[in-house]
Amino acid sequence: MTGRTGLVIDLKYILDIRNFSNHPLADKLVKSIDTIADDPEITSVVEAIGGIEPGYSYTKRCLAAGKNVITSNKQLVAEHGTELLALAKQNGVRYMFEAAVGGATPTIAPLRTTLAAGKVIAISGIVNGTTNFMLTGMLKNGMSYAEALSVAQQLGYAETKDPSDDVDGYDAGRKLAILSSIAYGMEIKPDDIPTDGISEVSLSDMKLAAEKGGTIKLIAHSEQSEDGNVSAWVHAAYVGENSRFISVNDVFNSVHYTCSNAGDVELFGRGAGKLPTAGAVMADVIEASENSDNRPVLWTKQENPFKYEVPYRYFVIKADGTSEITGKMTVAERDKMLSDGIAAKAYIVIDE
Amino acid sequence: MTGRTGLVIDLKYILDIRNFSNHPLADKLVKSIDTIADDPEITSVVEAIGGIEPGYSYTKRCLAAGKNVITSNKQLVAEHGTELLALAKQNGVRYMFEAAVGGATPTIAPLRTTLAAGKVIAISGIVNGTTNFMLTGMLKNGMSYAEALSVAQQLGYAETKDPSDDVDGYDAGRKLAILSSIAYGMEIKPDDIPTDGISEVSLSDMKLAAEKGGTIKLIAHSEQSEDGNVSAWVHAAYVGENSRFISVNDVFNSVHYTCSNAGDVELFGRGAGKLPTAGAVMADVIEASENSDNRPVLWTKQENPFKYEVPYRYFVIKADGTSEITGKMTVAERDKMLSDGIAAKAYIVIDE
Repeated sequence: MTGRTGLVIDLKYILDIRNFSNHPLADKLVKSIDTIADDPEITSVVEAIGGIEPGYSYTKRCLAAGKNVITSNKQLVAEHGTELLALAKQNGVRYMFEAAVGGATPTIAPLRTTLAAGKVIAISGIVNGTTNFMLTGMLKNGMSYAEALSVAQQLGYAETKDPSDDVDGYDAGRKLAILSSIAYGMEIKPDDIPTDGISEVSLSDMKLAAEKGGTIKLIAHSEQSEDGNVSAWVHAAYVGENSRFISVNDVFNSVHYTCSNAGDVELFGRGAGKLPTAGAVMADVIEASENSDNRPVLWTKQENPFKYEVPYRYFVIKADGTSEITGKMTVAERDKMLSDGIAAKAYIVIDE
Repeated sequence: MTGRTGLVIDLKYILDIRNFSNHPLADKLVKSIDTIADDPEITSVVEAIGGIEPGYSYTKRCLAAGKNVITSNKQLVAEHGTELLALAKQNGVRYMFEAAVGGATPTIAPLRTTLAAGKVIAISGIVNGTTNFMLTGMLKNGMSYAEALSVAQQLGYAETKDPSDDVDGYDAGRKLAILSSIAYGMEIKPDDIPTDGISEVSLSDMKLAAEKGGTIKLIAHSEQSEDGNVSAWVHAAYVGENSRFISVNDVFNSVHYTCSNAGDVELFGRGAGKLPTAGAVMADVIEASENSDNRPVLWTKQENPFKYEVPYRYFVIKADGTSEITGKMTVAERDKMLSDGIAAKAYIVIDE
């Protein structure tokens, strides 16, 4: 690769863990990570395996050998990013993962660049393309949840065997964990984020939301209080007519940062796909090759920061099939409203 | 400054060209640029003077002395960026200007980071907050153009003496020139961009647009053909109901990049203001202080690249006060339609 980067980047090896045969790049296939990690000519390694192992061990092996590692593996970054970032820093190399959140939508780079001088106060995002595609289908084509899931599976957006990662919000939770960890400078792990998905969202809920001018989206949200505590959640939420989220449809993603000096900033684009993901990975490879980085690690581990409760308004669906938007209430008040049978369902209201 | 950057940045001098007296930082005021340029302790200089001179001479002086220069001065970057970027590279320092386009909205950084591995095919933007505020006021409050201008002047968004820079599109043209130069890697100067503003946009045009589901916005647009030629313009354009531009209101800015592998990416935020601008400037100061940059200069001068004509659909206003949207036509066809009196006005249609 040359072009406007002025760089020549050659691909030397492909680690073959799945027995590719007759691959057009068969002459580059190797069987052991050691061949790559021990080659002094290699400066950067792209991990595109997915899941935790063997990517986790391979990443540690390569970072320890002084190679930059670039990945789109959100699960590995969300689970072990703290350790891997520290290991990279210790070895004077970089662990980069722009492609892990929002595909080629610039979500991580702005935190390191344009927004780096200020404080991020809150993050809200539509960060899972599969569920957003399904909800858009329900809204626009009157599909039920089951029909929308079936279409998403036919198109390859949702996994056929077990779509849980997407529809139950785990994928969104990992992405929120990564963005929040960078924004607040502290480890936020997916397991600490209250997460549910869209499987309880019915077509009739969507219609009731539309009557009020809004719609229902899977929202990942976190915010930090002035004393440093964090609130984070992934829920299907009611998005009001004044929110720019309302026009984020199909597989598109959108991340909003609320910043101390920049105010509101929104990054919108394709959240996934082969070319956007490859583009974001290669952008990190270029940056790791061209720019040194003398900053502290992006985040470190801190004692439980989850002591911040934010009150919300709720879009409430009642047993008689009507709906209303409440005033602000605490989680305890919401739960009482649900257990008393005053409301059958309660969606957080996002309206900005 | 310390915090998550891990840096200590001290302000040593303020160049006083306007005779500040009783300034709280009076002990830092100096009268000559030489004091700053000749001090080996200074690593970065922020130019916040605006206009061409004396900022242009001072910037050259500081770059030649081996200081990074950071600015929000879009006029200087658009007019002399080619020379100043080359001078910075020659001296091993950086000339940075994220704040020049979109305030703290990340518009330039994504071109250098997340989107750097692919090609930008087109840029469309609402990049002038003043005119967008005025058009929003006309749309929402039924103000005439003159009333909207008067309100913008009262609020300090438009200059009282001569609002031409904003309302005639020159400010938007400079910002488009900067983004296009980076995206296409070649010098695009404001004088080469056909530019008009919003002074011919009437309230009745806005109402006719609303009847068709769209609205009128000041759009800055450029695109590059496969053989490298460029088309660029700044015009009041008709924005259709499916465009995300339609919800960019008041002083907000939005820049859309159409990319070879990333697809559509949108960056949205506050386009101006003291804090957003200061935040973007300081982000560049931090980056210049922490990261070295081994890339080629962002752009270089090339022989006239403006040989690309793109046909557009037009939102046409007829003499009888009705409107319609045409099929695609060339500029010559549009001009004939206007000179033949078939249309009184013709706005380019943006509908994506």
